[in-house]
Amino acid sequence: MAQVSRIEPFSFGIDAASGVITPHQNLIQRRLSHMKGMFMDESAREAMFRVEDTLLYEVYEVMVPDEVGHLMICTSITYSGRVGREYFMTKGHFHKNIQTAEVYYCLRGQGFMLMESDRGDCKAEPMAAGRAVYVPAYYAHRSINTGKEPLISFCVYPGGAGHDYATIETKGFRKLVLEKNGRPQIEDNPKWKNNI
Amino acid sequence: MAQVSRIEPFSFGIDAASGVITPHQNLIQRRLSHMKGMFMDESAREAMFRVEDTLLYEVYEVMVPDEVGHLMICTSITYSGRVGREYFMTKGHFHKNIQTAEVYYCLRGQGFMLMESDRGDCKAEPMAAGRAVYVPAYYAHRSINTGKEPLISFCVYPGGAGHDYATIETKGFRKLVLEKNGRPQIEDNPKWKNNI
Repeated sequence: MAQVSRIEPFSFGIDAASGVITPHQNLIQRRLSHMKGMFMDESAREAMFRVEDTLLYEVYEVMVPDEVGHLMICTSITYSGRVGREYFMTKGHFHKNIQTAEVYYCLRGQGFMLMESDRGDCKAEPMAAGRAVYVPAYYAHRSINTGKEPLISFCVYPGGAGHDYATIETKGFRKLVLEKNGRPQIEDNPKWKNNI
Repeated sequence: MAQVSRIEPFSFGIDAASGVITPHQNLIQRRLSHMKGMFMDESAREAMFRVEDTLLYEVYEVMVPDEVGHLMICTSITYSGRVGREYFMTKGHFHKNIQTAEVYYCLRGQGFMLMESDRGDCKAEPMAAGRAVYVPAYYAHRSINTGKEPLISFCVYPGGAGHDYATIETKGFRKLVLEKNGRPQIEDNPKWKNNI
């Protein structure tokens, strides 16, 4: 095994109300324009986008060497809202090295961690402040905000895990979390594409 | 590389006031009797122990397979108090696979994460609710409670890291965190043993 890089110990602050990490080295922002075709109701997304390119989620990242042995750190902030019946959510991804887990510790808000394995096993774990979700190896994962406040989590995953967004962008998840009579409901994804 | 075990996604609660994980699969409790010779003032520890075998710290563990790719999860609760001038603290350890990091996210209390690398580099990072400490690969680490409340952290480290307690039990850390005029102060450890 290659030697793991030596870095200095450091500390950082996490504001549970906003999800901001201080100091952070990278900020990812995903808006309606980045999620074309990823919501069930594309015409609803398109109509919303014409009014405003709404911010759906943000990821604050602490940069350490992306190597096995290190731990990658970020916060994930998914804002409150819906595209049609579908709650605001992250794109979701597998890890490029699929044999790596991730831990989400929820600091604020309400929602679900939607997970789906490479074999098609599906699970949605509820998220709420003070709860943590273990996303095992082999599982794609997506944060979904079903509440009124931002859904904020502190996330840790192994160095070298990497990200595979393409699989979900192409196929989608088998399940969706949709609003029905004012409540979240898990339904089959009518657009889910097998064998692509 | 061996295949990483498949496990089901799961979630758990972390009570920030007590540090209790629900559900947890293991609880480690360390008392004065477990820390013989580890404080600077052994006669003070001995005198305290004769009155009561005081609980110094607890670790709640979530059990997942201890394999590379998984993430090990626990909370660490170090109680408030002193043995002579020295604040209550954990034993401290290196990881058996020294090329692995750990992240501590502090939920409650005040203190320090004392770290020392295999090369003798020392650093003490302040801990407080809402702050996180990155313990890099190659660093032994010890939580030290300098406040009045329990010092509680949520901890994540890579599967397969393991624990090496023997090195610190034998040599100690080069630095100590001691009370002076009502405040914590970092001092050289007069009992630190080189070349053992």
